Amino acid sequence: MPRILRLAAAQMGPNQRADTRETILARMIALLEEAAGKGAKFVVFPELAFTTFFPRWLIEGAELDQYYEREMPNPRVQPLFDRARELGVGFYVGYAELTPQGQRFNSAISTGPDGSILAKYRKVHLPGSVEPRPGDRFQQLEKRYFEYGDLGFPAFRGAPDWGAPVMGMLVCNDRRWPEAWRVYALQGVELMVMGYNSAAYDPNGGSTENEEIRTFHSTLAAQSNAYMNATWAVSVAKAGNEDGSGLIGGSVIVDPNGVIVAQAGTLGDEVLVADCDLDLTRQGKEKMFNFEAHRRPEHYRRIVEQVGAKPPA
Amino acid sequence: MPRILRLAAAQMGPNQRADTRETILARMIALLEEAAGKGAKFVVFPELAFTTFFPRWLIEGAELDQYYEREMPNPRVQPLFDRARELGVGFYVGYAELTPQGQRFNSAISTGPDGSILAKYRKVHLPGSVEPRPGDRFQQLEKRYFEYGDLGFPAFRGAPDWGAPVMGMLVCNDRRWPEAWRVYALQGVELMVMGYNSAAYDPNGGSTENEEIRTFHSTLAAQSNAYMNATWAVSVAKAGNEDGSGLIGGSVIVDPNGVIVAQAGTLGDEVLVADCDLDLTRQGKEKMFNFEAHRRPEHYRRIVEQVGAKPPA
Repeated sequence: MPRILRLAAAQMGPNQRADTRETILARMIALLEEAAGKGAKFVVFPELAFTTFFPRWLIEGAELDQYYEREMPNPRVQPLFDRARELGVGFYVGYAELTPQGQRFNSAISTGPDGSILAKYRKVHLPGSVEPRPGDRFQQLEKRYFEYGDLGFPAFRGAPDWGAPVMGMLVCNDRRWPEAWRVYALQGVELMVMGYNSAAYDPNGGSTENEEIRTFHSTLAAQSNAYMNATWAVSVAKAGNEDGSGLIGGSVIVDPNGVIVAQAGTLGDEVLVADCDLDLTRQGKEKMFNFEAHRRPEHYRRIVEQVGAKPPA
Repeated sequence: MPRILRLAAAQMGPNQRADTRETILARMIALLEEAAGKGAKFVVFPELAFTTFFPRWLIEGAELDQYYEREMPNPRVQPLFDRARELGVGFYVGYAELTPQGQRFNSAISTGPDGSILAKYRKVHLPGSVEPRPGDRFQQLEKRYFEYGDLGFPAFRGAPDWGAPVMGMLVCNDRRWPEAWRVYALQGVELMVMGYNSAAYDPNGGSTENEEIRTFHSTLAAQSNAYMNATWAVSVAKAGNEDGSGLIGGSVIVDPNGVIVAQAGTLGDEVLVADCDLDLTRQGKEKMFNFEAHRRPEHYRRIVEQVGAKPPA
């Protein structure tokens, strides 16, 4: 029996700092309803979907804390969960997590058609720095505001109604790290979902990257890692001019050949939908990327035995 | 001082089974001379450059053995080495290796401007199968004719005259395996060189891949892995209709942003040349892909602790 899952990418335009949570939630619910109206069973929202990308500023105390969710769901996000349950649609959403123990993570969850949380992921590859760069208007302070994800890359099963796909979550910068995709592929992943907030300029203070090259990098990472891991991938932006700082768009749904099957054309709220035949992953998994037949881990040990690069003399 | 290295990709058209070694060497020398005439200091030839892609046939004994080199160099390849030394040009070339102990590898070497061998590589990711597929006209018997490479992925320094780049070699199918690139990147690789013979149809007996998608995959693997490992890459085909079996072209020189700077337009003998600023790798190595700052090997252990995929229940 074919396992066809209709997926949606819910690209979001910017969330301004001055926007109320109600305004943002209303936009997300409108995107969810549009996706459900087009028959999608699972909808992928961006990283930090409920807020502006606050790590661009050096802030603290209550000003910082307002951006974190203490539990999931909670009253400030409940309307999205309620509407999704009514529509029978699952979703991925990224958010800033503050645990009862005071730990902070850049997290994402995926929900099932009944609104229950299927799995949680905490971003492993935090970009940026702890200390701000003097004189720069916009910072990249994720290493200041979040701890490194402590859950690894745990694959999980999607709903039986979706064909029970093996799923994996990433957040933003993770998608550029082949190790992350491979750890999921070693769990047989068929559907990778991820949201991002990626600056339209070099967020690390360099001068060689612009919106065009950074959009290209985002697309290239989704396409190539989908291909090399024989999986579907949905990679979704929060895009546009957010509080004066540009974010790339370029949300895509990519098939296991690395071919783009749907791509955003705007920097605003936009729904992409595609029918994903989960069994298209079989060609890669059973032939070119039949790991059992072809991988040679005895030659991969540097990947876990060292962190930084060590050039030869 | 800028480290600009002028590189060449020497794409080759097909080597027919009936072609003499002299004919093939003459073509390679002509490509070498064209590249040197354009100022290239290092020239990348394909995998199994001296012969046809013999693993497409089930053969044995003397018919098989004729395709292997017993040492490197040897009289059957010496004219290429001599001409390269005269021109002061180094090269990468792939060949079938038969050791004095009787081991067989799908190997490559890189030479320096003085014609000496700088480093050897033996292909780790052998595709195909040991046993032929009944009824298929063309096979993929690399697992029958070669042992798995036993040298790992050893980076080496190119000539001082080239800016002493950290270099790494791959052969064909290796280029689709992110682990291979990453092990080199963990040695600080700045220039990855590789040759291939990739069928223009699914060589594993499937029916979903054709010349277009396979050329796309080849290019995608070179672009993405160059980007994610912040390295230059030169990926070079033996192309065209070889003894009735199609090989893709699509040779490329790719910069550390993953951008193609030169690309073959034919399926025949063709030289691509590009000036490669080795210090363009610094942006990636020091910012986005600063491994010391951003990698989290504690979450990558599956990459070495298991071979095949293990899906969740």
